[in-house]
Amino acid sequence: MNFKFLQKKIPSYLLIGAVVVLLLMLFEPTRSFAQDATGAKTGTINDVPAATAGKPTVSEVGEVAGHNKIAINIMWTLLAGFLVMFMQAGFALVETGFTQKKNVAHTMGMNFMVYAVGMFGFWICGFAFMFGGALNAATLGGAPGVISHEYVVHMFGHDFGLAGSVGFFLNSDVYDVGVFTLFLFQMVFMDTTATIPTGSMAERWSFKSFLIFGFFISMFVYPIYGNWVWGGGWLSQLGANFGLGHGMVDFAGSSVVHMVGGVAALAGAIIIGPRIGKFNADGTTNTIPGHNIPMALLGTFILALGWFGFNPGSTLAGGDFRISIVAVNTMMAGTAGTLAVLILLYIQKKKPDPGMLANGMLAGLVAITAPCAFVNSLSSVIIGAIAGALVVLTIYIMDYKVKIDDPVGAFAVHGVNGAWGVLAVGLFSDGSYGDGWNGVAGPVKGLFYGDASQLGAQSVGALTCLVFVFVVMYAFFKISNKITPIRVKAEDEIAGLDIPEMGVQGYVD
Amino acid sequence: MNFKFLQKKIPSYLLIGAVVVLLLMLFEPTRSFAQDATGAKTGTINDVPAATAGKPTVSEVGEVAGHNKIAINIMWTLLAGFLVMFMQAGFALVETGFTQKKNVAHTMGMNFMVYAVGMFGFWICGFAFMFGGALNAATLGGAPGVISHEYVVHMFGHDFGLAGSVGFFLNSDVYDVGVFTLFLFQMVFMDTTATIPTGSMAERWSFKSFLIFGFFISMFVYPIYGNWVWGGGWLSQLGANFGLGHGMVDFAGSSVVHMVGGVAALAGAIIIGPRIGKFNADGTTNTIPGHNIPMALLGTFILALGWFGFNPGSTLAGGDFRISIVAVNTMMAGTAGTLAVLILLYIQKKKPDPGMLANGMLAGLVAITAPCAFVNSLSSVIIGAIAGALVVLTIYIMDYKVKIDDPVGAFAVHGVNGAWGVLAVGLFSDGSYGDGWNGVAGPVKGLFYGDASQLGAQSVGALTCLVFVFVVMYAFFKISNKITPIRVKAEDEIAGLDIPEMGVQGYVD
Amino acid sequence: MNFKFLQKKIPSYLLIGAVVVLLLMLFEPTRSFAQDATGAKTGTINDVPAATAGKPTVSEVGEVAGHNKIAINIMWTLLAGFLVMFMQAGFALVETGFTQKKNVAHTMGMNFMVYAVGMFGFWICGFAFMFGGALNAATLGGAPGVISHEYVVHMFGHDFGLAGSVGFFLNSDVYDVGVFTLFLFQMVFMDTTATIPTGSMAERWSFKSFLIFGFFISMFVYPIYGNWVWGGGWLSQLGANFGLGHGMVDFAGSSVVHMVGGVAALAGAIIIGPRIGKFNADGTTNTIPGHNIPMALLGTFILALGWFGFNPGSTLAGGDFRISIVAVNTMMAGTAGTLAVLILLYIQKKKPDPGMLANGMLAGLVAITAPCAFVNSLSSVIIGAIAGALVVLTIYIMDYKVKIDDPVGAFAVHGVNGAWGVLAVGLFSDGSYGDGWNGVAGPVKGLFYGDASQLGAQSVGALTCLVFVFVVMYAFFKISNKITPIRVKAEDEIAGLDIPEMGVQGYVD
Repeated sequence: MNFKFLQKKIPSYLLIGAVVVLLLMLFEPTRSFAQDATGAKTGTINDVPAATAGKPTVSEVGEVAGHNKIAINIMWTLLAGFLVMFMQAGFALVETGFTQKKNVAHTMGMNFMVYAVGMFGFWICGFAFMFGGALNAATLGGAPGVISHEYVVHMFGHDFGLAGSVGFFLNSDVYDVGVFTLFLFQMVFMDTTATIPTGSMAERWSFKSFLIFGFFISMFVYPIYGNWVWGGGWLSQLGANFGLGHGMVDFAGSSVVHMVGGVAALAGAIIIGPRIGKFNADGTTNTIPGHNIPMALLGTFILALGWFGFNPGSTLAGGDFRISIVAVNTMMAGTAGTLAVLILLYIQKKKPDPGMLANGMLAGLVAITAPCAFVNSLSSVIIGAIAGALVVLTIYIMDYKVKIDDPVGAFAVHGVNGAWGVLAVGLFSDGSYGDGWNGVAGPVKGLFYGDASQLGAQSVGALTCLVFVFVVMYAFFKISNKITPIRVKAEDEIAGLDIPEMGVQGYVD
Repeated sequence: MNFKFLQKKIPSYLLIGAVVVLLLMLFEPTRSFAQDATGAKTGTINDVPAATAGKPTVSEVGEVAGHNKIAINIMWTLLAGFLVMFMQAGFALVETGFTQKKNVAHTMGMNFMVYAVGMFGFWICGFAFMFGGALNAATLGGAPGVISHEYVVHMFGHDFGLAGSVGFFLNSDVYDVGVFTLFLFQMVFMDTTATIPTGSMAERWSFKSFLIFGFFISMFVYPIYGNWVWGGGWLSQLGANFGLGHGMVDFAGSSVVHMVGGVAALAGAIIIGPRIGKFNADGTTNTIPGHNIPMALLGTFILALGWFGFNPGSTLAGGDFRISIVAVNTMMAGTAGTLAVLILLYIQKKKPDPGMLANGMLAGLVAITAPCAFVNSLSSVIIGAIAGALVVLTIYIMDYKVKIDDPVGAFAVHGVNGAWGVLAVGLFSDGSYGDGWNGVAGPVKGLFYGDASQLGAQSVGALTCLVFVFVVMYAFFKISNKITPIRVKAEDEIAGLDIPEMGVQGYVD
Repeated sequence: MNFKFLQKKIPSYLLIGAVVVLLLMLFEPTRSFAQDATGAKTGTINDVPAATAGKPTVSEVGEVAGHNKIAINIMWTLLAGFLVMFMQAGFALVETGFTQKKNVAHTMGMNFMVYAVGMFGFWICGFAFMFGGALNAATLGGAPGVISHEYVVHMFGHDFGLAGSVGFFLNSDVYDVGVFTLFLFQMVFMDTTATIPTGSMAERWSFKSFLIFGFFISMFVYPIYGNWVWGGGWLSQLGANFGLGHGMVDFAGSSVVHMVGGVAALAGAIIIGPRIGKFNADGTTNTIPGHNIPMALLGTFILALGWFGFNPGSTLAGGDFRISIVAVNTMMAGTAGTLAVLILLYIQKKKPDPGMLANGMLAGLVAITAPCAFVNSLSSVIIGAIAGALVVLTIYIMDYKVKIDDPVGAFAVHGVNGAWGVLAVGLFSDGSYGDGWNGVAGPVKGLFYGDASQLGAQSVGALTCLVFVFVVMYAFFKISNKITPIRVKAEDEIAGLDIPEMGVQGYVD
């Protein structure tokens, strides 16, 4: 830093700034550490509120220990929920990257708007229907004073829970820190379901029709099925009522979240019909390549991150150390799905299409979502690898056999592998976790570890999901099509939806 | 996997690898779980350091409980801070996506550089001015041994705190784990403020002028106003000194962060003038569309994620279970802002421009930032919906009435809604939180819940922010313009700033 | 909302929806807060499991306190690991943004695939080699029942640990919540190493050759060197065995992660040779600009976020409050690296190229990774500033002197600054942390604080890394080149690798 530099017109403020900083550095004291640089003096018995400071009683210490226990669980659940919420960005990027340039504002716009629409619908009534029957999550402090209530019908000598009925608009009856924690976590799960059909119906769905769908699925379809599995409804009681294992077991939502979304995506794709140009009159199929691979892969990375909220967060408890096994299983299944697709592509003498590799990872992640807490890492690898094979096979069948146009493979990834994940619980659960699940004593075991009846419960659950969601969503799309057309005009589809539907270009040069 | 595949030249390493893996799978033992697969044996009384292992005294247990309590708070604050830091990426993407292709390296570069410039300025003196008067955050362990000091002036029989004076360069006086936690969290908040004007002044701001600004706002403007509200300064004492509610209450920075940034953005936009081509001689206004909608929406998703650090993290305590209500309120306000803009667009018979929807979400998030801890979810929805309306209205006024060119709507989103958020505290606070806030007994209540004086404090705070920041920043931009021109040359602006200002093209074909 | 609007064909469902919502708002009860809105009743002594509910014994409270302590550490480690995993997206974006448009699917694809390949290799044997010698991380509960075993050779009267031998395929011997936590955290670290060479060898590396590399480095090279420093191997014992300070100290992986990756990147870049067109016959060098600056900067933001998992997470303990100092030091070094590059560019009368600024931040972050826990914030600034200078200098030397083509500056960022970071531990460690590190009593001190022998240990460690990794990787690339060519065909390189290597275009218009 010398005069010669100054002659070259170094901005003088830079020079002065640098000199000041260097001088100050020289004056930085290196004296002893009077403060607490290591943390040894921070966080001590003095932080335990006590009548006699520094000398708490057992009760006073117990109060803090109990509070800490619940704090760990609430923190864990909230942080996991934040990661899941960010998955919305992942879905938006994957779907937009895998579709055409002329529709980016529309595809992105749907994925953004579902965020707001779904959350609002879930706040109005979705949460109440889903969890209003059983709001007292013990790990989150038990929601003291909140009275839950489940609508039940009595048949065959048993109660069948159908829906909850407490918590509409998060009203003052449920103005409770534990309930709000549960709401946040479940709200972000719902949004994943709601966004899946925006993939299968992309590039031709009318925005207004999409808006109606967003409210419908978040207010009714997702919460009702969710209640049956997670809210204390009848599928969860198949074990207690009919001796089928632990009843339907879905740890983090292979069925509740992914299969519901995937089956709705299938119903929507059938009713809306294929994109113009996808299938030819002569029976052949065209590939419509995605416009931006980096965008789709960034989305996949974000989804993979979010899955660490999705699965480990579903303990609703940071104090349940099974979270580490859940996290590892999650990643290993994604890894195995990716590698399975790679091997299949090479066996078919194809190139390693990054889009297919990404779908392989997502397939593995979807499939492990239900069993992640109940299996070991080797089983996770097997489950993920099979998921990778299933996604390749399903996309082939959809494109070349049944000829349903699903631009991003939403049904292959979420629908088929959601079902596979639920069944995998009934096969691979190794009896190391889940003691007392759904009120049934003993850990969860699959067929390979000696409990065939668990597979029965899983099959009932998956079949119920398929039938219930497909029928309801098929009917919904048919009816909503009469309110406002589900499909955009052909000339808009050919020109691109950005201007006609959204009023702006996605990309401007 | 057979010979026929080999004839087709399957790479042999793949085959061998697959076989090895399958073989190893067969040998995977399925024996009993000798280790701790469930966590039941992990984390026990043996982890409590004790003179007699496994039989700790009350004091020994209390020591651990107290340490855990602070650990929960430090973890929470740090993790929240990490999320806030990532918001910088969100701002960069939103601003770059909403501006023109010819300026991407410049817009992105400013948003990146503010990261480094702002942090360095805050480290030099910003932190000391802002928090050097009161460094002992109790939730973070109280910073044992650190002596705080606030500069005060004595007027009207009361002390008026103006700025802190301890902690320059994070010197060895404050080499303390609690202080560093606070520093990290506050540093990332500051960077949000500093980056807001890069939006309103985008596409025409000289990079050198921007650098000076970055140091100025992070070293002086943000910290001083921040001290008044959060550092024990005079606005926070309006309650204790003058009976105005709890004094100025801003939970997470609608004013301290967003309104400061937004008002600075306004001052800058006025002085730098509109982009060439924005306003026509005949009084009409041109729309200059953003070049990349997916980029802007990805940025919005990232910002929405970061807000979960911003607002819930502002408890500085994971043990304060109000965090769950803060988190839900945050999201509901963003949702309501988005939906309000959607409805307004439809009422105006416009298309659902994703850029406006994104601004609606951001507006809701900005507005809820101050009141998020004090209101219920229904109030959050109302606050967010009004914010959405305000952003649409303000952008209209800026573009068509007062004709100030703010390319990304920075003042509309952060300035107006920052003010709205501060006032909303004084209207909607429902008395369920904030007992003892700013040294005033009882919970925080707004006008609708019976405390009109709180609205008075909020009004004084918002007005102070507007006047102080506008005057200082207006003068600053005027003066800095004499040191180095604030605005690039017209020919550079027309050609695009990437090469003349940054030396590289943002996009290369 | 009136009839006139209806005449304008406002969609009636919007109107109805709005009215319903408004009506419901009016009926929202404002009654008193019967539930627990503040959290005051949530998380109490009743959450301590006790024979007499609400009146736990000291042992019962101690059990909860011990469990909470480990829960805090496991949560911290897992959450940090999730952030590190996301860095993979950052690397993918940085490398793809800094390379050419014609290779985006290839560059992105490698960065995505290394995720799966690396993790699978690490699961097969990498983890066992690296940590199988010492699996009982005390902060994570000590892995009760897991028997560790390190292969050692006995020389010069001392044991030299070479590799671990327990935990292949995460088999049932290590089916333990603590071990799985460690596995997750270390797996994501490994992936950082594995992805670094995809930068230096970008735009010309055959995908199949890359796949072999991915398995090799994750199964053998990274784990072996990692064992020596972190797994109880011989470098970590240089203090106990030979009196060299605390042995090799690398807090979060300047050497283990970054230098290993950077040196491998150098070996690869040498063997694969420069891109066609990089160096001219007349001895001059061409600049091949990156195709997308926003993409590269977004990647840098993501990396900066991930570094907050990388460094603070390396305590493996949220209860170790040094995490706050680690986090601040991390950011300050990145800041200083950025500013140093800015100043250097201005001194050279160059424009502030955002790509160089990003490399400056990354250089600072790499360099602080080893010393982050042992130094104060001022030293972090100095370390980061020097790192910024080193990256500028190294890129200059690589491009213009030794003429090795490293498209993204991988060796400059990770190799050179990894070494610098390791040496910085031996210079700047201030004696405020690290008591008992590697079994040596007293805190870690560098040369400037009186312990020259620590610098000796660091030098041995860095030199070992350079020689071991360079030799092994050089030999590996030579040999793997005979199995399948390391470099793509020249015509593919000129046309772009997307179609020939990956079968799809990265961008489709």
